[in-house]
Amino acid sequence: MTSRDRFLAACACRPLERPPVWIMRQAGRYLPEYRELKAKHGFLGMVKTPELAAEATLQPIRRFALDAAILFSDILVIPEALGQPYRFREEGGIAMEFAIGSRADIERLAPAEAVPDRLAYVADTLRALKGELAGQKALLGFGGSPWTLASYMVEGGSSEDFARIKGLFYTDRPAFEALLDRLVLALIAYFKMQIEAGADAIQIFDSWGGIVAGDDYEAASLQWIRRIVAALPAGFPVILFAKGASAQVRAQAGAGVRVIGVDWTANLASAREQANALHGGRSVSVAVQGNLDPVLLNTAPEAVRRESARLLESMRGKPGHIFNLGHGILPGARMECVEALVETVCSWR
Amino acid sequence: MTSRDRFLAACACRPLERPPVWIMRQAGRYLPEYRELKAKHGFLGMVKTPELAAEATLQPIRRFALDAAILFSDILVIPEALGQPYRFREEGGIAMEFAIGSRADIERLAPAEAVPDRLAYVADTLRALKGELAGQKALLGFGGSPWTLASYMVEGGSSEDFARIKGLFYTDRPAFEALLDRLVLALIAYFKMQIEAGADAIQIFDSWGGIVAGDDYEAASLQWIRRIVAALPAGFPVILFAKGASAQVRAQAGAGVRVIGVDWTANLASAREQANALHGGRSVSVAVQGNLDPVLLNTAPEAVRRESARLLESMRGKPGHIFNLGHGILPGARMECVEALVETVCSWR
Repeated sequence: MTSRDRFLAACACRPLERPPVWIMRQAGRYLPEYRELKAKHGFLGMVKTPELAAEATLQPIRRFALDAAILFSDILVIPEALGQPYRFREEGGIAMEFAIGSRADIERLAPAEAVPDRLAYVADTLRALKGELAGQKALLGFGGSPWTLASYMVEGGSSEDFARIKGLFYTDRPAFEALLDRLVLALIAYFKMQIEAGADAIQIFDSWGGIVAGDDYEAASLQWIRRIVAALPAGFPVILFAKGASAQVRAQAGAGVRVIGVDWTANLASAREQANALHGGRSVSVAVQGNLDPVLLNTAPEAVRRESARLLESMRGKPGHIFNLGHGILPGARMECVEALVETVCSWR
Repeated sequence: MTSRDRFLAACACRPLERPPVWIMRQAGRYLPEYRELKAKHGFLGMVKTPELAAEATLQPIRRFALDAAILFSDILVIPEALGQPYRFREEGGIAMEFAIGSRADIERLAPAEAVPDRLAYVADTLRALKGELAGQKALLGFGGSPWTLASYMVEGGSSEDFARIKGLFYTDRPAFEALLDRLVLALIAYFKMQIEAGADAIQIFDSWGGIVAGDDYEAASLQWIRRIVAALPAGFPVILFAKGASAQVRAQAGAGVRVIGVDWTANLASAREQANALHGGRSVSVAVQGNLDPVLLNTAPEAVRRESARLLESMRGKPGHIFNLGHGILPGARMECVEALVETVCSWR
């Protein structure tokens, strides 16, 4: 069984001896070879150059027996393609070139049709990866959720309190909806392009989904994701990950996604149960992904083995599990801890 | 019915025409008179001087028809009393004078018996407030949870990833438990002193409870809170607030607390149901507090009125509700929005 087959079987909730495993932000700063590449070309240089993006994607795959490779890119290429460029602030965080502040700003955004052209480098990267992986590993594409992208666009970058985007949501709903509507169309075009270029699954990062008031999650974020999923090929594996939104698992399961990513603060088996509550426990159709605390990889291999085994044991006999962290791996992760995680999952029976 | 009676009735889950209302961090930077006091005396100067702490406590009560006053203080006075002073970093966040790094550091901490003496200024503040409030308003004391305080102590201040405290928890459990044990004893002494000085209720801020892996919340945080509650007078109203821990509401309800604070990401009525699940819906014995998104107070009075009414309506006929935000009020909150919130709750029928 190839890694790719294992991954797709888990998405389809088919029973497996052991779950497939990948690590959010697996192409990242904890890898010396990644830091070297970034020092030479810069983050955005890597993102926009297919050979470099493919190289960064493959680095963790060469080092560890992971079952999936995830496109090296950034969720903010979408605002950029729509006409709102960005940069990384020296002090950390994101600065957009300007903040969306008016209806006119929204109307000035490029149409969704421009996306495949402007982000052709993403399709090129995926095609190169498809060739390299030769069907052995699953190839994941990704993008941000409309709500998450809208947050950056309206806040003008990283935010602490999200006062502007929430202000728009609570006080000018029509403008909010006009913006989200444009993002939905752009993301549909973007994900279709990724699928045509070879992505086996798409992960939607609803990174700021967890900061929305619980009762407003549907209106602010989930409804727009549902529209995107409905526009993709029927049954195509979409993974939805919203940090801090474990109270929304049941709602998310109703959005048509095949896999729900769960952060480390929730119990994964309970999340799986909630996601499939309508089936009364007899069968499951929505898989879960997660949810080891990323910080464990900064501690010691022994702790990683123990906690990974505890998580695996809690999911024994429960099909529909993709092993992952509950959030992205930290720059301070130790190589021997990553090794311990992958070994523990791959040798699990 | 006085505000104090209303507050205590809500803690006891007795039916009320409208819930009592207070605002987390109500004595804070959104108030011009607070900023003035702080510019003159500094935050720690205010905390440690009973007349100034009492003044800061009373400022929001004078301006708004709130039902409770909460002691103006800081959770980190406990580490300081135990021998680990701290300061506010210029760039934001907390810096402890040193980080707890070894068993010896833990053993060097002052014993719990030193707490009432070293924090006598807190008792003095509460006694002064008790006189001022004359039984009209509820007077709340507070402190940090053992886990939250241990996080600051072991991280050496504010942290992004909590790698040190989690490292201790996952790789040296005996040392972790030795530290938490000391904090439990210190907090029992501290809360008993607050109760004797006139506090009508105590809120425990488990500010970092929400960053713990879900399956470890009991071992890392809740068990220590349970020990504290068990050592306080039977039935005394303890409010437990852990941001980002809405998945833990049912567990929290088993810790002996009378009220559970719920952040804005959860549905408050569902949280109330979960907290009282063992009663099968027939009666409730655990109240809930919350949970309006704080950022609403930065938007517009109309949005505040609409969303407050929506929250109140969702809790209609459900005794055991203290109206509050889902987290502390932000410095950018607008006075007319706070006014709109308090008016909406106080005129609710």
